[in-house]
Amino acid sequence: MVDYIRDWTEIYRRSFAIIRAVADLSGFSAAEADVVVRKIHACGLEAAGREMVFGGGFVEAARGALQAGAAILCDAEMVAHGVTRARLPGNNEVVCTLRESAVPELAQRLGTTRSAAALELWMEKLAGSVVAIGNAPTALFRLLDLIDAGAPGPAAGGGAPGGGGGAAGAGGE
Amino acid sequence: MVDYIRDWTEIYRRSFAIIRAVADLSGFSAAEADVVVRKIHACGLEAAGREMVFGGGFVEAARGALQAGAAILCDAEMVAHGVTRARLPGNNEVVCTLRESAVPELAQRLGTTRSAAALELWMEKLAGSVVAIGNAPTALFRLLDLIDAGAPGPAAGGGAPGGGGGAAGAGGE
Repeated sequence: MVDYIRDWTEIYRRSFAIIRAVADLSGFSAAEADVVVRKIHACGLEAAGREMVFGGGFVEAARGALQAGAAILCDAEMVAHGVTRARLPGNNEVVCTLRESAVPELAQRLGTTRSAAALELWMEKLAGSVVAIGNAPTALFRLLDLIDAGAPGPAAGGGAPGGGGGAAGAGGE
Repeated sequence: MVDYIRDWTEIYRRSFAIIRAVADLSGFSAAEADVVVRKIHACGLEAAGREMVFGGGFVEAARGALQAGAAILCDAEMVAHGVTRARLPGNNEVVCTLRESAVPELAQRLGTTRSAAALELWMEKLAGSVVAIGNAPTALFRLLDLIDAGAPGPAAGGGAPGGGGGAAGAGGE
């Protein structure tokens, strides 16, 4: 039998201590650094922190919105299921519309991906929401299009699209 | 309106071409390289490929088991929901037992994490399965304990536990 730590609080304590020892967090505020540490922890890769960029007041805006009960709008089921419901401060609804039956036809009609088309079904929840884009660059681009076109804005949005082919520029918008 | 690619097949084609251009895949077989490319794509980080190690025949064993209808046993809901059901070749069941009602008490009785205790509920599905550990080092350690103790082995297992504090050694077992 392998010897390993079985106490989850001790596992977390050590993990976060290791990450804070090895990661360069000097470019982040204390609140931002907390987010970066969680992301490095989730990825198991210190390099994940080096890719993160925050807009002014992002963490405060997201925390405030969550405490006020904001919905969390996710582009992918995997993102939605990565949200630990028990830690949410405002009994927040977690929404992913990607698999709703209207989406394939919407995508065809709009000439875009299903991930982007799924945002059409966010409209009534978008104002004051927290948006989490974990997969699809097209979902992030579509959100920016909708806001440019006058849609109500979320309180905060975070994006870590995968891939590469369609993602150039998504982070800078 | 931002200009971006809206055709998902073209997005995938470009993404994989970029990854194959920048990633060092020379240490992998062709079948392993396909897996590494998907992992880099999912993470959006070329560095993710450098951490991957394959046991002999892993990809062939996993593919054969999936084609034969093997269950996919996952340590976390997020992993289970990251499996694209439509691409599975054998109508495979995707299982995550972490949230089953027996788990908190099992964890307390066994003196371990809920992630490790959840494996007690895998037993009847473990033989010939494909195991995917995406989160909890303790789940991977517990699996190795169970196999050491005579449990029927999965056909293939892959692990990418997060964190750091409990994970040292998990990959080498």
